[in-house]
Amino acid sequence: MGNKLTKRAEDYSKWYNELVIKADLSENSGVRGMMVIKPYGYAIWEKMQAELDRMFKETGHQNAYFPLLIPKSYFSKEASHVDGFAKECAVVTHYRLKNDENGKGIVVDESAKLEEELIIRPTSETIIWDSYRKWIQSYRDLPLLINQWANVVRWEMRTRLFLRTAEFLWQEGHTAHETKAEAIEETQRMQRIYADFAENFMAMPVIKGTKTESERFAGALDTYTIEAMMQDGKALQAGTSHFLGQNFAKAFDVKFTTKEGKKEYVWATSWGVSTRLMGALVMSHSDDFGLVLPPKLAPIQLAIVPIYKNSEQLDQINERVEKLTKNLKAEGISVKYDNRTTYKPGWKFAEYELKGVPLRLAIGPRDMENNTAELARRDTLEKEVLSQDNLVDRVKFLLNEIQDNLFQKALDRRNELITEVDNFNDFKNVLDTKGGFVSAHWDGTSETEEKIKTLTKATVRCIPLDAKEEEGICVFSGKKSNKRVLFAKAY
Amino acid sequence: MGNKLTKRAEDYSKWYNELVIKADLSENSGVRGMMVIKPYGYAIWEKMQAELDRMFKETGHQNAYFPLLIPKSYFSKEASHVDGFAKECAVVTHYRLKNDENGKGIVVDESAKLEEELIIRPTSETIIWDSYRKWIQSYRDLPLLINQWANVVRWEMRTRLFLRTAEFLWQEGHTAHETKAEAIEETQRMQRIYADFAENFMAMPVIKGTKTESERFAGALDTYTIEAMMQDGKALQAGTSHFLGQNFAKAFDVKFTTKEGKKEYVWATSWGVSTRLMGALVMSHSDDFGLVLPPKLAPIQLAIVPIYKNSEQLDQINERVEKLTKNLKAEGISVKYDNRTTYKPGWKFAEYELKGVPLRLAIGPRDMENNTAELARRDTLEKEVLSQDNLVDRVKFLLNEIQDNLFQKALDRRNELITEVDNFNDFKNVLDTKGGFVSAHWDGTSETEEKIKTLTKATVRCIPLDAKEEEGICVFSGKKSNKRVLFAKAY
Repeated sequence: MGNKLTKRAEDYSKWYNELVIKADLSENSGVRGMMVIKPYGYAIWEKMQAELDRMFKETGHQNAYFPLLIPKSYFSKEASHVDGFAKECAVVTHYRLKNDENGKGIVVDESAKLEEELIIRPTSETIIWDSYRKWIQSYRDLPLLINQWANVVRWEMRTRLFLRTAEFLWQEGHTAHETKAEAIEETQRMQRIYADFAENFMAMPVIKGTKTESERFAGALDTYTIEAMMQDGKALQAGTSHFLGQNFAKAFDVKFTTKEGKKEYVWATSWGVSTRLMGALVMSHSDDFGLVLPPKLAPIQLAIVPIYKNSEQLDQINERVEKLTKNLKAEGISVKYDNRTTYKPGWKFAEYELKGVPLRLAIGPRDMENNTAELARRDTLEKEVLSQDNLVDRVKFLLNEIQDNLFQKALDRRNELITEVDNFNDFKNVLDTKGGFVSAHWDGTSETEEKIKTLTKATVRCIPLDAKEEEGICVFSGKKSNKRVLFAKAY
Repeated sequence: MGNKLTKRAEDYSKWYNELVIKADLSENSGVRGMMVIKPYGYAIWEKMQAELDRMFKETGHQNAYFPLLIPKSYFSKEASHVDGFAKECAVVTHYRLKNDENGKGIVVDESAKLEEELIIRPTSETIIWDSYRKWIQSYRDLPLLINQWANVVRWEMRTRLFLRTAEFLWQEGHTAHETKAEAIEETQRMQRIYADFAENFMAMPVIKGTKTESERFAGALDTYTIEAMMQDGKALQAGTSHFLGQNFAKAFDVKFTTKEGKKEYVWATSWGVSTRLMGALVMSHSDDFGLVLPPKLAPIQLAIVPIYKNSEQLDQINERVEKLTKNLKAEGISVKYDNRTTYKPGWKFAEYELKGVPLRLAIGPRDMENNTAELARRDTLEKEVLSQDNLVDRVKFLLNEIQDNLFQKALDRRNELITEVDNFNDFKNVLDTKGGFVSAHWDGTSETEEKIKTLTKATVRCIPLDAKEEEGICVFSGKKSNKRVLFAKAY
């Protein structure tokens, strides 16, 4: 490794960019704004996918797959939806290349122009609701609970690895229900599942709330969000769940026959999380030495490094580690034994530290004599010497403890970064000096929201679900307000 | 259900199309040639993915993800590659839509034209090898064994659900090696893994062989294939593994430093299977009553249907089935208890028959008295009454037996459909009447292959790996040949 990371205190943004690349999570590709997710980063994403997929299926959802390309006419059917996405669409106009007749190489074959342009999905409501019209006839077909794992493209102008990329991977749930109440219940259920995943797997505390009108999904009546706080005091929207009302059912004419024999439009939800969560994960726990991963999402939970002077010693350690590894794996612990002879122990230590492996075990000749080993925690950087006989129990204990510790640290930090303010001077001051969430009264108008954004770059991240009713006055307009909302600068 | 399937003997092609739709596997979308994979079809695909992914990882491969879009200039770097794919490419030319100034709705914003067109990946060699240049420096970085699960687009003119679609899902492996021998070994290893998967999970016998020059992947020096035989006597290419030599390494300038300190180009392979396997699976085992699924890939292995006259009886059956289901699930059997009151037992029987569920269990009031149940096999349509006490053992036994039986039946049928011929009259006659593989001597030239194809629509499906050396003369040209190859009409 050698070349050190920029420190967070020096330049947080630079630290993040360097870390993502040095830890082999992802890198930029030759296509503007599109990233390559490298094997180590992808392995973390696969762990996330597996847990989320399990949670979705346990709550009755099924996976399906819909086309990548959406006819422009479908895309235009729901007015506010197309307004929200039209400015960042990749458009397919032709379906063939050819050799240029003037020897200029490969060119687009103009004779192969599509009659109707196709949009690469930025989200799939329109193509999916076009199918739902065929799938839904009667109340017996409802609820329809579908999820899709897919890539989407949004032509973002300023991109950052994981946080904002022109192509990203995500899941998008699309459900249809008999009643408004059921659809709202589903919207809230998925928000709870996202919060559960963020807190119990990513060890990332989140605040559950709803979005203001101006921050809602294009086409939604209500957007439920989970909001996380990064170490630099900026908020990150980590997942959203939308109550779509009957907007898409009406746009695509999806009606069902009720038990009473009436025809009614169905009620809809959609919800998604993306590879953006990878960025949130990196920024939640990592430090100046590199990545710090919560054990539940770490592709490698324990790295074992042999320390030896000759091949005889290595052979002995290999033999011992084989037994230890077997016991660890039997307990479901993901272990990597790194006995590559092409790298030195010190290099390997730095490598696993950089890559955020929760526990590292070193075994040398003296350990072989004493039946001991040295265990190092990534989160606290503490080391301990323990008996090999206690290894499995201790590793299990520490993996749980690290998971809990990371959550608690992130929670304490996040709570520190919520500040109640009651006037606009304090509001600006907190944002400029401390950052984080500013809990303030707001008059509920888009005008005030917009003005505050222009003056401070802070937006309403959410109206917390658990905001308590209290009399107050808007920090900006002085008008009446009955609850505090959370403002912050955001990723 | 009611509306019956077309019979295979009547119109095989129509039978297939109807079955795929009626069994809820997939359907056409509003986008020309692009399919929607419905939840039941996707659940089978997920089972396939899980097994393949496990096999890839067990042999040292890691997953990663590369951009969907490929700059035209990358795509053109390997000459034979671009020749092979240029005619069926979806081309992105713009990145924004806007409201038409003349009120014609949403139109492409001509001011948002890309400087260089982007191609939706039809396969990812070029974008991946552009990354490999950065990833590979030294022999220590090799072998590089990467797989990607992704969607790809090939603008096919004549499409059929699963078999040939403009967008499909697949996995594509891309590996880099120090030596030619290692790369060839990898190419062959992946062919063996594909054959193992086809035979032991899909219960579909395949012939391992290599492609002739004219049937090779665009950019490959050698293509290894697994070829299956469908019930109508047409062959289906089920998976391919390509030895790419140093073609892409040279096109993208990917060199490594050897142990001896020399700079050399790396050696490459790529290999893939796709949702086309879903079509192969359907056609391998299904019958005039519907789908027949091998137990190892069936989303539901056992469907349980209660038969009752009143809610009291249903309550009693529910309680009993809960216990039975618990025991079955403990053995890893995937069970669905269908006690919906909105459908009758007869409807459910037809439904699970159509959907190819390997085993169906019916329990009625008399069974409750006698501690029995009626078990029906989907493959043979045989029924048996058994004691509820023996259920778990019997189900486990039958699932294995059905898996084996499906393979054996498919193998017998396939072997029946291999015919050795020694002259061109017999060749044509066999193709016209019996179909299947025609095992014949061929002079090894593309000219002869092309002429035979024009006259008979049959192509060389493969040169079998186990073809025995024998003196012979080409059925068409009369020239010398030293082994038989397999011709067939193909999907």
